[in-house]
Amino acid sequence: MPKLTDPACAPQDHLARQRVALVHQGAIERAAGIFRAMGDAPRLRLLTLLGQGESCVTEIAAAEGEDLSTISQRLRVLRNEGLVSRRRNGKHILYGLADQHVADLLFNALAHASEGRADLSRFASLNPTKE
Amino acid sequence: MPKLTDPACAPQDHLARQRVALVHQGAIERAAGIFRAMGDAPRLRLLTLLGQGESCVTEIAAAEGEDLSTISQRLRVLRNEGLVSRRRNGKHILYGLADQHVADLLFNALAHASEGRADLSRFASLNPTKE
Repeated sequence: MPKLTDPACAPQDHLARQRVALVHQGAIERAAGIFRAMGDAPRLRLLTLLGQGESCVTEIAAAEGEDLSTISQRLRVLRNEGLVSRRRNGKHILYGLADQHVADLLFNALAHASEGRADLSRFASLNPTKE
Repeated sequence: MPKLTDPACAPQDHLARQRVALVHQGAIERAAGIFRAMGDAPRLRLLTLLGQGESCVTEIAAAEGEDLSTISQRLRVLRNEGLVSRRRNGKHILYGLADQHVADLLFNALAHASEGRADLSRFASLNPTKE
């Protein structure tokens, strides 16, 4: 297979098709913020836990063996990007994935990262079925 | 609506359900790397251009009004995370989205970021239909 070197083509070779930005720059910036929030292994691991169902911060801290304040800080970053929901249920404050888009983002990234090596079938709420 | 304050629950309140890490830490780290690569507005914008179809670096640089070296550097980061494919076609070296997982990641993040404000219907190759 020949080595891929610097392109031998010139700008005028592409006049037949034109690439234009279809997405508003504001949406790009917001989406980049979402990806940055997910681009940290401890925060991403927290999202996969929430993908199993709503949890409260006490329960997450116990499962992870971490301080409440550490978990709260991670949840705050994720909530600021709209990735995590929060609601009260009795004495618990439950956190969960914000919506199906977030579940799909997680599922697709893990599937891409795992290349078939991980069993994702147990992620009931990460199933990428559309509403 | 009552203010959500610090949790009043204790670890022993959650014994009925247990959260465990279902995803291997290696997959989490790789997925976080994918999100970090996508968590930069110029690189994300480049991915949305590739979402319209394969393009060569000359063509992208012309469309974006940027240097070839700048575009090449962004493509390199994205290729290192397995997000972008590369193949030769005659005198062109064509870059594209690596697979449907990447297209789905883009589509879901932009949909989540846009909240219905962007018209994503023109992204033929970003349609989240599964194979």
